[in-house]
Amino acid sequence: MPLLNEDRLFPGDIRGKDLARKLFASVRDLPIISPHGHTDPRWFAENAQFKNPAELFVTPDHYVFRMLYSQGVRLEDLGIRSGEKAESPVDPRAVWRVFAQHYHVFRGTPSRLWIDYSLQNLFGVNTVLSADTADEVYDQIADRLAQPEYRPRALFEKFDIEVIATTESPLDTLEHHAQISSSDWDGRVITTYRPDAVIDPENATFAQNLQSFAVITGEDTATWDGYLNAHRERRRDFIAHGATATDHGHPTARTANLPENEARKLFETVVRGGHTAEQAEMFRAQMLTEMAKMSLEDGLVMQIHPGSRRNHSKSIFDKFGGDKGFDIPGRTDYVDALGPILDVVGHNPDFTLIVFTLDETSFGRELAPLAGVYPALKLGPAWWFFDSPDGMRRFREVTTETAGFYNTVGFNDDTRAFCSIPARHDVARRVDCAYLASLVTSGRLGETDAFDLAQDLTYRLAKKAYRL
Amino acid sequence: MPLLNEDRLFPGDIRGKDLARKLFASVRDLPIISPHGHTDPRWFAENAQFKNPAELFVTPDHYVFRMLYSQGVRLEDLGIRSGEKAESPVDPRAVWRVFAQHYHVFRGTPSRLWIDYSLQNLFGVNTVLSADTADEVYDQIADRLAQPEYRPRALFEKFDIEVIATTESPLDTLEHHAQISSSDWDGRVITTYRPDAVIDPENATFAQNLQSFAVITGEDTATWDGYLNAHRERRRDFIAHGATATDHGHPTARTANLPENEARKLFETVVRGGHTAEQAEMFRAQMLTEMAKMSLEDGLVMQIHPGSRRNHSKSIFDKFGGDKGFDIPGRTDYVDALGPILDVVGHNPDFTLIVFTLDETSFGRELAPLAGVYPALKLGPAWWFFDSPDGMRRFREVTTETAGFYNTVGFNDDTRAFCSIPARHDVARRVDCAYLASLVTSGRLGETDAFDLAQDLTYRLAKKAYRL
Amino acid sequence: MPLLNEDRLFPGDIRGKDLARKLFASVRDLPIISPHGHTDPRWFAENAQFKNPAELFVTPDHYVFRMLYSQGVRLEDLGIRSGEKAESPVDPRAVWRVFAQHYHVFRGTPSRLWIDYSLQNLFGVNTVLSADTADEVYDQIADRLAQPEYRPRALFEKFDIEVIATTESPLDTLEHHAQISSSDWDGRVITTYRPDAVIDPENATFAQNLQSFAVITGEDTATWDGYLNAHRERRRDFIAHGATATDHGHPTARTANLPENEARKLFETVVRGGHTAEQAEMFRAQMLTEMAKMSLEDGLVMQIHPGSRRNHSKSIFDKFGGDKGFDIPGRTDYVDALGPILDVVGHNPDFTLIVFTLDETSFGRELAPLAGVYPALKLGPAWWFFDSPDGMRRFREVTTETAGFYNTVGFNDDTRAFCSIPARHDVARRVDCAYLASLVTSGRLGETDAFDLAQDLTYRLAKKAYRL
Repeated sequence: MPLLNEDRLFPGDIRGKDLARKLFASVRDLPIISPHGHTDPRWFAENAQFKNPAELFVTPDHYVFRMLYSQGVRLEDLGIRSGEKAESPVDPRAVWRVFAQHYHVFRGTPSRLWIDYSLQNLFGVNTVLSADTADEVYDQIADRLAQPEYRPRALFEKFDIEVIATTESPLDTLEHHAQISSSDWDGRVITTYRPDAVIDPENATFAQNLQSFAVITGEDTATWDGYLNAHRERRRDFIAHGATATDHGHPTARTANLPENEARKLFETVVRGGHTAEQAEMFRAQMLTEMAKMSLEDGLVMQIHPGSRRNHSKSIFDKFGGDKGFDIPGRTDYVDALGPILDVVGHNPDFTLIVFTLDETSFGRELAPLAGVYPALKLGPAWWFFDSPDGMRRFREVTTETAGFYNTVGFNDDTRAFCSIPARHDVARRVDCAYLASLVTSGRLGETDAFDLAQDLTYRLAKKAYRL
Repeated sequence: MPLLNEDRLFPGDIRGKDLARKLFASVRDLPIISPHGHTDPRWFAENAQFKNPAELFVTPDHYVFRMLYSQGVRLEDLGIRSGEKAESPVDPRAVWRVFAQHYHVFRGTPSRLWIDYSLQNLFGVNTVLSADTADEVYDQIADRLAQPEYRPRALFEKFDIEVIATTESPLDTLEHHAQISSSDWDGRVITTYRPDAVIDPENATFAQNLQSFAVITGEDTATWDGYLNAHRERRRDFIAHGATATDHGHPTARTANLPENEARKLFETVVRGGHTAEQAEMFRAQMLTEMAKMSLEDGLVMQIHPGSRRNHSKSIFDKFGGDKGFDIPGRTDYVDALGPILDVVGHNPDFTLIVFTLDETSFGRELAPLAGVYPALKLGPAWWFFDSPDGMRRFREVTTETAGFYNTVGFNDDTRAFCSIPARHDVARRVDCAYLASLVTSGRLGETDAFDLAQDLTYRLAKKAYRL
Repeated sequence: MPLLNEDRLFPGDIRGKDLARKLFASVRDLPIISPHGHTDPRWFAENAQFKNPAELFVTPDHYVFRMLYSQGVRLEDLGIRSGEKAESPVDPRAVWRVFAQHYHVFRGTPSRLWIDYSLQNLFGVNTVLSADTADEVYDQIADRLAQPEYRPRALFEKFDIEVIATTESPLDTLEHHAQISSSDWDGRVITTYRPDAVIDPENATFAQNLQSFAVITGEDTATWDGYLNAHRERRRDFIAHGATATDHGHPTARTANLPENEARKLFETVVRGGHTAEQAEMFRAQMLTEMAKMSLEDGLVMQIHPGSRRNHSKSIFDKFGGDKGFDIPGRTDYVDALGPILDVVGHNPDFTLIVFTLDETSFGRELAPLAGVYPALKLGPAWWFFDSPDGMRRFREVTTETAGFYNTVGFNDDTRAFCSIPARHDVARRVDCAYLASLVTSGRLGETDAFDLAQDLTYRLAKKAYRL
């Protein structure tokens, strides 16, 4: 019996379901555009075999291990290591068994949908994962991983990825991207400029990062001019490795546009390290506008991902580091926050600023009204905890009436979990087709328009917004 | 082929759709009560021909031109003029062509529903507007506009408007209303007292407005007593021109009830112009309570429309002035904000205070709980960006369970776009009927009650709340 | 004709409705677990007859009288008495007639569903309550109340309540619980430790309460150590009377974990009464963490119910006291607020902290992400104004995808209205079954899993979370 229902995520009424099926059939086989994500370029550079099922599905997936941790499973038992002291090696089969034994806690979550999709469509599994079937499923996956068709490049092709963007810091050498370019493989793996580490004065290693930034660019990053030049230079390098966009993960959406001498003075303060929290916030705010100004020169699309309160548990951060599931969204203001940057670039129809949110209340109240008038501003798709069937549906329901479809930019899978990519695009395509079908059946959209929009939402808008 | 689906906005399931049809049939032909809006009384006073399709559908409709601007169309190309320098005259056919060429960007928006309704039902258009059909549709509309049945008074009657309220400032002479009254036409066009211009110390021409306020009333508006008397007098004038309500568009919902001597002192400060932002806010807050006290005397229903951050783009405001699509909602608090005014008038069942919001989160959390207990407080309908099928549905879903139907006041079309009035009431009636049908089919409401409520939501509640 | 639709609250599509019916049939007859509520233990101790229909349905039910008050009915006419001066005695039949005459204002509210359920299923009423039927229905209920099967203990058994928790203050003698235990009746009625009165320095009688706290415990509650010991002692007493949980109703969710000497000093400040509002807030915050630490010792589950702005109308409070329908929700922050307590107990899988909210925006943005990672944190069900069909549906829709089902704790009826208990559990079971059915029909959940979850949501999760 298949794990997946062929009509999953389609409307319940017969006309709606029937139309959603047809719409989905028209976009199901379009190539994947993945303009924002966190896969490891080393995979495609080295094309080495993925090691085992636990490393593929459990250890790198914060959605998975945070849920298991919430149910009382220790992170250590999921193969998470602090890396600082003598620790036992990870037994992948033991990790997998813990995962399988708790698989019922994912009922109703997108993780369950994504994993079942991969198990069925990629690994041919047709039995529900559980304590009883753990070993059988483990072996089946492990067998496949040993085959050449399961190497990263082969999967990239099997997934029909037209282009995928990874995300790198300005301190990254981009060696894996270089290796991919110089190889005979023609998969399009591009980088994205994500300069948070050299922009956030509250980053634990900010001073050190500025020094590395100097080394990698040859600029004097202790001066405002040198620091800005270092950004310009690295942006050029990133563009040379395919980048079409930057990305900025800030605690808030605040932007600023200080007079040049104040910006310079603020930089001098944060470089000396004696800044207050407010000065750090102001520096991040100012740098968003500086990045926008550079985008006006070099054409990189700009993405802002604000609103996550990172590392909510200090004890987990101290022991295991960041990205351990303890990043929690908070209220985020956009109306005042984006004012300064929109003053500078918002009216420019050739500029693209894509904004995301983890505060759903801002979609209808703030972001859709803003994106529905500023030519440069576009709405990023439902993000992170809202990258889910209901999250995506609500995104459309609270943004379309005010901002329309054409101020949105298609789907981002935003993932580190490579095998989940086709599963995530499958969910997004189905949810969008279901939404379009419901607009048609409720007389709010013509059927021809719906088919045209299905192409836009799946393929065209992402290519256009990210200039791919 | 018709542009509109006969069953638009009804539920997808057969029983729900069937019942919604019947409910809608029972209210479809009720007269329109339009207790809040922004049509121009001059239209009905002079009964002149509307000039051309662009002036009817594009130039005055901020929903339309903001969406086009967001897609890179210049305001100038939509016939928006700054009015300050030598500008080219507007070519209405050129404006219409730009609009038609971009008509697809309105897919899924209420603008599309409203415009298609007008095109089909008012102008007999049965072809989808597009670059290809632009001229044909333009000519068809222009032809009709030249006919006597398309003059404002004839349309008023065709739309079956029982009463419509316009909105004027205390500085308005109300001459057009006087002209309507003294004419032999018996359409009921009433005014609404909207005193923001003489209440908001942060209004750019506040001092000048107070002087005009003195001239028009003969009161000394530089003194607190004279200023209050000027309001009382103008409210009497407005009542003489049919007004049953006041309206207040403030940045926040804050109200205050200062001791008389403090209010007087605050007035003296703002009149001198040396006020802080907080003093300006406090003055607006105090004036809401002063207006409420006057309503206790003269019986005017009070409306508060808070929460819009006006003129988000300074460059657009400087060039084109206000109401250009750059008013953006923000978070709005009601619980503390409305405390002072509710202390004064909230327990009075003969007083009516209608509150609107652009912050949907406040409906379930704050406004429904408040309206569900204070006898004076009623909920205004889904407003502005939420005057849309999904916005209205969410309004019912988050308010009914706590405040019921009888603490709401029916629909407001709130529009400057005259031809959209029947279209907007059509949408509201359909969405309410769909909601009622869904309550019946899910066993939460009896069918007889649903038919009774359909009359209430369409007609009775508005008449009662606005004392029409 | 029955008042109730057999398929109420089920999905509209045929497959969904059919599956919801089956799911509901599988849980309909499970015993009621009522782990949080406000019934009066005296009822079960004394087992006296309920006096009349008005005292059963109107006077004690703030949902009912607040709605009637909002529609202009005086509280005095609903039998609400200030208790301070010579007042007329309540005429229950007159109260009932006012209620019946206004029964239509409850259309679409959960109150209507609950009351119709009781009227039909408990009192055999099959005519809609209205002015016309008021007396007939009154007599029918009054007749039944005189019968022994309508005494509290008989109803408890008829309702199939396996266990019910009441809520008492540390100043309560628990005499009624003692009386129940020592009786020959074996109904399980347990208490809950709700210490707000001796924790909130802004409570009007805080100083007096501390003295009573000293008297009832023999501890010196004017010292920090004595005060904490008094809590420990009373918690032991409550546990002896069946308590498995504490409950804390604070204005905000703020918690603190001060160094011991600062906590002691803060206590000394609030005991002297010279505290600021911020110090009062900080003391409440600190006491939540102190309570958590005691729970680590004695095993009581901890509940936090924050976010209600109590007694919004001072004039109503002054005349009639608290709990008169004027408690209004406000924005509530959880991310920063819960940080300190989660640092102390959040990672302990043997600890249970159940958090509720009246700010629905916090579910998706804050609470589901927090509960989806901290092992100790669980989400309380949709509460108060959101204890309603749409409120419960939204609760599942915004929490399940992030926190799953297993970080939730089943249903709380949270009521003072005894007869509404089976009605409320009926609504909750139906809404959950409808949600599960919709997940199955949209291919997001297996049918077997849905039946298993129906048992969890109805019965098992509440027993487990509350250790019953």
